[in-house]
Amino acid sequence: MRIVGGSMISALKRLSSVGSPSILASNIRSLSTFGTMSLPDRKPFSPDFFFRQLFDTESSTYSYLLADLKNGEAVIIDPVLEQAKRDAQLVKDLGFQLKYAINTHMHADHITGSGWLRKLTGCQSVIAAASGAKADRHLKEGDRIDFGTHVIDTLATPGHTNGCMSYVIKDQGCVFTGDTLLIRGCGRTDFQEGSPRHLYENVHGKIFTLPENFRIYPAHDYKGQMESSVWEEKRYNPRLTKDLEEFIKIMDNLNLPYPKKIDASLPANRECGVYDIPKE
Amino acid sequence: MRIVGGSMISALKRLSSVGSPSILASNIRSLSTFGTMSLPDRKPFSPDFFFRQLFDTESSTYSYLLADLKNGEAVIIDPVLEQAKRDAQLVKDLGFQLKYAINTHMHADHITGSGWLRKLTGCQSVIAAASGAKADRHLKEGDRIDFGTHVIDTLATPGHTNGCMSYVIKDQGCVFTGDTLLIRGCGRTDFQEGSPRHLYENVHGKIFTLPENFRIYPAHDYKGQMESSVWEEKRYNPRLTKDLEEFIKIMDNLNLPYPKKIDASLPANRECGVYDIPKE
Repeated sequence: MRIVGGSMISALKRLSSVGSPSILASNIRSLSTFGTMSLPDRKPFSPDFFFRQLFDTESSTYSYLLADLKNGEAVIIDPVLEQAKRDAQLVKDLGFQLKYAINTHMHADHITGSGWLRKLTGCQSVIAAASGAKADRHLKEGDRIDFGTHVIDTLATPGHTNGCMSYVIKDQGCVFTGDTLLIRGCGRTDFQEGSPRHLYENVHGKIFTLPENFRIYPAHDYKGQMESSVWEEKRYNPRLTKDLEEFIKIMDNLNLPYPKKIDASLPANRECGVYDIPKE
Repeated sequence: MRIVGGSMISALKRLSSVGSPSILASNIRSLSTFGTMSLPDRKPFSPDFFFRQLFDTESSTYSYLLADLKNGEAVIIDPVLEQAKRDAQLVKDLGFQLKYAINTHMHADHITGSGWLRKLTGCQSVIAAASGAKADRHLKEGDRIDFGTHVIDTLATPGHTNGCMSYVIKDQGCVFTGDTLLIRGCGRTDFQEGSPRHLYENVHGKIFTLPENFRIYPAHDYKGQMESSVWEEKRYNPRLTKDLEEFIKIMDNLNLPYPKKIDASLPANRECGVYDIPKE
């Protein structure tokens, strides 16, 4: 990456014809720093890697349908109960065979869709053993999940809950962080088995040490942001750029309301992939 | 793409151990058709192409920030007024220089962010000449918009409104369809200068003729779906897979309510990129 002289000059000419002095100054700042603090090149997804982000408006949850386009094997990360029919239809439309419905943790704000998807598609449900939830398959750090020729590596990243895992696909340059690391934020640490110290240490030790161009895909966002990168969160996360003591102080003083769906979600999510299909 | 025998056998074994007969049958169907009706390989974004989808919850609008990572020149497609500060902050965080705020059409359901972004970043506002809206730059079909080494081609796709344009980036294999083509849907044709015939002809003549692996990025979605592909919409769009006469009948009988923000949006959007910055 470099600053392109001609481009800068033409940009300044253009700016000077439309912008006020303060606008001009702010644009010069952004141009002049592009070469030195620049965002790294993206690692493209490979042509046989299918990626589709999906959203549940009610709980602001992101789910991710991933597949190998060579043989159609697919997985979904963090499906939501109310969207299970939509997701199963998409799997069918695309001709995929859903192998796993994988949870990043035992959610407190919505009921996982893994149980219903298991019934609808025959997939297996997956969650960390440390979550305490039932599932077809339990993970510990270092376990690998494969679909087609693609491999998901697992990182234990407790802090929001004990059973939080982050899922890394090295060859595609991306990590699914659940509620451990959100875009310019992080999951709360004041209920279930929350620990701000563990969350901080795991983000800094296991996620911020990934290559800076790795894309970050969280379980939620509340501001219409859909992805981030290690590069961005290391620089701009307003909580996790602080030192540990200040981070703990921030997290201990958020004074957030009790999650409105926690009393319904936790008992259901403890049964994760094995509870009965809801009546339509 | 091919059916992998071993994988199919193991999938069937796994299914038979957990699934009911109907689940098994449905999965066999999806597996057995994967080889013949299979989704084409994806054309990956190039490493120097930055892509970030953004969402406005209130109007369910998608905006797209695109940039050249070699020199930091960026454009945003269909920004929303209420998100202009968020978008300008992201542009600044990433060290980009916003060159254009581009609208796919004159929106009736929200006010474009191009005016405010113009003030905040010094970018130029862009819209089709046929829209009748003011802007720094007016487009007609065949015009090209460049940022860094990347080029956006323009297709006139009226039908939802007279000034609807679709934006194609051939080298990245994607098209931004505005309200002309939505995921498993399309924009309404019963107000402004709507014409179901024109919409149908433009989708079939100009979008469905793109390569099948081209990604489709619409201006809206109301079900948490974020992207589609030419392959998918040609097969599964419930309206546009019909013949023209049936399509017109469907569109003429939707009986949709009057858009709640149209009376505020149209006058503001007529001024597109040049109206005054709102007071905070």
